[in-house]
Amino acid sequence: MHTTRNRRIVLAARPKGEPADEDFRLEETDIPSSAGGQVLLRTLYLSLDPYMRGRMNAGPSYAPPVEIGQVMQGATVGEVVESKAAGLQPGDIVLAYSGWQDYGVADARSVRKLDPQLAPVTTALGVLGMPGMTGYTGLVNIGQPKPGETVVVSSAAGAVGSVVGQIAKIRGCRAVGIAGSKEKCGFVTEELGFDACVNYRDDGFEQALAAAAPNGIDIYFENVGGRVFQAVLPLMNLFGRVPVCGLVAHYNLTMPSRGVDRVPMLMTAILTRRLTFRGFIVGDFAAQRDEFMRDMAPWLRDGKIKYREDVVDGLEQAVSAFKRLFRGQNFGKLLVRVAQKRDPKPGA
Amino acid sequence: MHTTRNRRIVLAARPKGEPADEDFRLEETDIPSSAGGQVLLRTLYLSLDPYMRGRMNAGPSYAPPVEIGQVMQGATVGEVVESKAAGLQPGDIVLAYSGWQDYGVADARSVRKLDPQLAPVTTALGVLGMPGMTGYTGLVNIGQPKPGETVVVSSAAGAVGSVVGQIAKIRGCRAVGIAGSKEKCGFVTEELGFDACVNYRDDGFEQALAAAAPNGIDIYFENVGGRVFQAVLPLMNLFGRVPVCGLVAHYNLTMPSRGVDRVPMLMTAILTRRLTFRGFIVGDFAAQRDEFMRDMAPWLRDGKIKYREDVVDGLEQAVSAFKRLFRGQNFGKLLVRVAQKRDPKPGA
Repeated sequence: MHTTRNRRIVLAARPKGEPADEDFRLEETDIPSSAGGQVLLRTLYLSLDPYMRGRMNAGPSYAPPVEIGQVMQGATVGEVVESKAAGLQPGDIVLAYSGWQDYGVADARSVRKLDPQLAPVTTALGVLGMPGMTGYTGLVNIGQPKPGETVVVSSAAGAVGSVVGQIAKIRGCRAVGIAGSKEKCGFVTEELGFDACVNYRDDGFEQALAAAAPNGIDIYFENVGGRVFQAVLPLMNLFGRVPVCGLVAHYNLTMPSRGVDRVPMLMTAILTRRLTFRGFIVGDFAAQRDEFMRDMAPWLRDGKIKYREDVVDGLEQAVSAFKRLFRGQNFGKLLVRVAQKRDPKPGA
Repeated sequence: MHTTRNRRIVLAARPKGEPADEDFRLEETDIPSSAGGQVLLRTLYLSLDPYMRGRMNAGPSYAPPVEIGQVMQGATVGEVVESKAAGLQPGDIVLAYSGWQDYGVADARSVRKLDPQLAPVTTALGVLGMPGMTGYTGLVNIGQPKPGETVVVSSAAGAVGSVVGQIAKIRGCRAVGIAGSKEKCGFVTEELGFDACVNYRDDGFEQALAAAAPNGIDIYFENVGGRVFQAVLPLMNLFGRVPVCGLVAHYNLTMPSRGVDRVPMLMTAILTRRLTFRGFIVGDFAAQRDEFMRDMAPWLRDGKIKYREDVVDGLEQAVSAFKRLFRGQNFGKLLVRVAQKRDPKPGA
């Protein structure tokens, strides 16, 4: 099936809490035209990532929000179908940021050409892309792991967490994962080689975590927040470091949680145990991209770093797939396969 | 008046909340004897500092707690009255850690001889001592001030805060103090040279703070916690730094405060604004003592750094003076003048 039409998913309304189907709208438009210096891309894979929830809110976050009626933003792997830029030809596969749609136009300077011979092109959205570099830079720069230390990471089976724990192992640390199912924990220890993994949905999670970190926690790589964080905090060692990378458990909160204000406890822990908390996004360490690739590409080639993808077929599945991220229902890097690679000319 | 007896204040009970008179006991004992390598010290000045509240609790903090029946710990300036150690003679004035008592015995290696010609000896307990070095090392290492940035410090008229703001000015920053009275704020701006100071007891404190930091806050040097912190957090700039030095508003908390749990908000601020929070105590930067003195001594001599002392007379006043620290009733570095310098031999 091919078409001259472009399907795209736009933000129809700002979600209240967990995103709902009616917050999005699938539209059809003509395929856009590229101008000089631009390429027309056919989306092969769309990356779905937790940060996108923040872009749906009106308030300021890392970046300006997606406006109502705009195409949802997102990183993609696409095929060049039309090029008005030097150095890029139809059939080239590129990493772009063309969003939740079948076709997108991009400035050639904003895309990166991928070599399908070097690694599967989807790795540009995962282990060799933003999530992998997020794990790498957060752990190395903020975590500063030293041999023998204990590194705990939440969302351990996810795109970022799986990289964090495996690099911790390479750096001579004890790696402890936190994940949301027995199956994920099995993958984390057996496939990824973490020393231990604890299921946060189990009764006795707090005790199991303490048992898995008998020497306390030196680095906690924070992806989730919520009660996982509350279980980690008492175990943090003197001079512990907490790279704050994500807070998936909080993104859909609409009301502050009532009860006890734990800020005094948190600040007291920071003070008396001299903890470092630092928030970051991968862009803060953009200058380290070459270093990241120099380390990561051989690790991947040599099997020291493994990864798992959770691939959903069809752009029309993007919304339901995205919602799974916040229920812990994805298992590995979540991708939407929007199209298969084919002949360069659309509608031909 | 002199005596052969030693008065000392011991911890009689662990305070619940704010320390009460009955948590302490004034005892009389014989003057202790020094052994080889030791000196007998007559306390001239006792330093009272907020960290002492933590030592009164049973739980672990920076250091082991004071046991019930033990002399309250504290830094002192004392006069050597008896020396069994080379290099120290009766009449020498030293910085020691001999606690809340008239006389103390100390290993000679644990004291530091002071030169009364270089600076008033009380400065060894304040601007040239632990509080001054706390402000210096926390601001320089964690705050990392850059010219043009805005530095906000709570307890701005206090021993640590006054140093932080003045160094911020020396480093070319905008210095904004937070203090608890109009008089203190006047001192902070007029004497210490901060650009602004806001009274946290005033109605409209939050608005006044925002107005005093029109470009937002790059560094917040945290001494207090509580609602001052809640007012600061929304003003923190991208990549802001928060050296967590003290939490005076929390030390006497016995119950978690009910209401809204602000931890998700705090973590979200850390993440989206990429803030760094780091707890520290001055001992973490002990290796920088020479650097501190190289900077601070000339600043003090040249009048670039000013200080204020709040001196209470008589060891028996120590408890009531200490309680003032938590009510914001001290004004400057709080000291107890335990005795005047006099002839070296006690009871002579």
